[in-house]
Amino acid sequence: MSRLDSFIRRLEAQRACLDFAARLVHGVEGDVLELGLGNGRTYDHLRQLFPDRKIYVCERRLAAHPDCVPPAEYLLLGDMRDTLRSAREPIAGQIALAHLDPGTGDLAASRALALELTPLIVPLLRCGAVLVSEPALASDQLSLLEPPESVAPERYNIYRRVSRRSSA
Amino acid sequence: MSRLDSFIRRLEAQRACLDFAARLVHGVEGDVLELGLGNGRTYDHLRQLFPDRKIYVCERRLAAHPDCVPPAEYLLLGDMRDTLRSAREPIAGQIALAHLDPGTGDLAASRALALELTPLIVPLLRCGAVLVSEPALASDQLSLLEPPESVAPERYNIYRRVSRRSSA
Repeated sequence: MSRLDSFIRRLEAQRACLDFAARLVHGVEGDVLELGLGNGRTYDHLRQLFPDRKIYVCERRLAAHPDCVPPAEYLLLGDMRDTLRSAREPIAGQIALAHLDPGTGDLAASRALALELTPLIVPLLRCGAVLVSEPALASDQLSLLEPPESVAPERYNIYRRVSRRSSA
Repeated sequence: MSRLDSFIRRLEAQRACLDFAARLVHGVEGDVLELGLGNGRTYDHLRQLFPDRKIYVCERRLAAHPDCVPPAEYLLLGDMRDTLRSAREPIAGQIALAHLDPGTGDLAASRALALELTPLIVPLLRCGAVLVSEPALASDQLSLLEPPESVAPERYNIYRRVSRRSSA
């Protein structure tokens, strides 16, 4: 498989997971959170999937296509490890769907960042919310769901926010 | 259609056209020319399609994935308008397949560059060679081919190098 094949497969998986997640949260009220704007392609996709929901966007430094820059009031600019802490008050427990794509292109760095971010993201999610993430995450409040049929397991990950599991 | 949809469609068209072109030049001897390396994804795809051919690569400034950097002897580094002129001697009439993806992200700039490059590219092509290009090109030595079935006309363009058409 060439890097072109692999890139296409990754984007198709990303889109399939977002479309699938949108159906999963159809009955879950709340906002959307895009963790990593990049060039804004998935943000644009989320806008089309959720025309009636607020979409908060975290990004370190704006580099998106001009058509894909979120309104200032929904843009959390800076290091996600800081902005997610300071944003916690207004959006805690308000998010119905979150999408994490660190887009570092470096698997080890993505995993390390995901590990740091998970405890910051989970409290923002409503119970029943869905979290779509390229790197795998681990939390006793996240239950791994089956991806859509077209997506190979572990290529992209979909979680449902659940109540803390009993350790008994 | 979101920008994510549109990007996936563009990459799928690119891959379908390269795969199709590889079959078209199966019986045409000669080298391959990648006009614009970028991150090296299509170069990697070409390497897999043509494991036994030399692949020359034009790029202004190397920014490819480390696994996708061509050997120095096949890399024409600099502005294509200069390097294609100076490379003309060794590769003139030697190219069986060329791929032009200026990757500027700016349609008008791509078209203007394509206009300048066409007379520099055409003399490098063997008769019967195939030129795959995102921007449309015009030359009396290029005959437009039907794209593969999955690709919408004008999304990606495939040409066959022919003898100069008579103006009679």
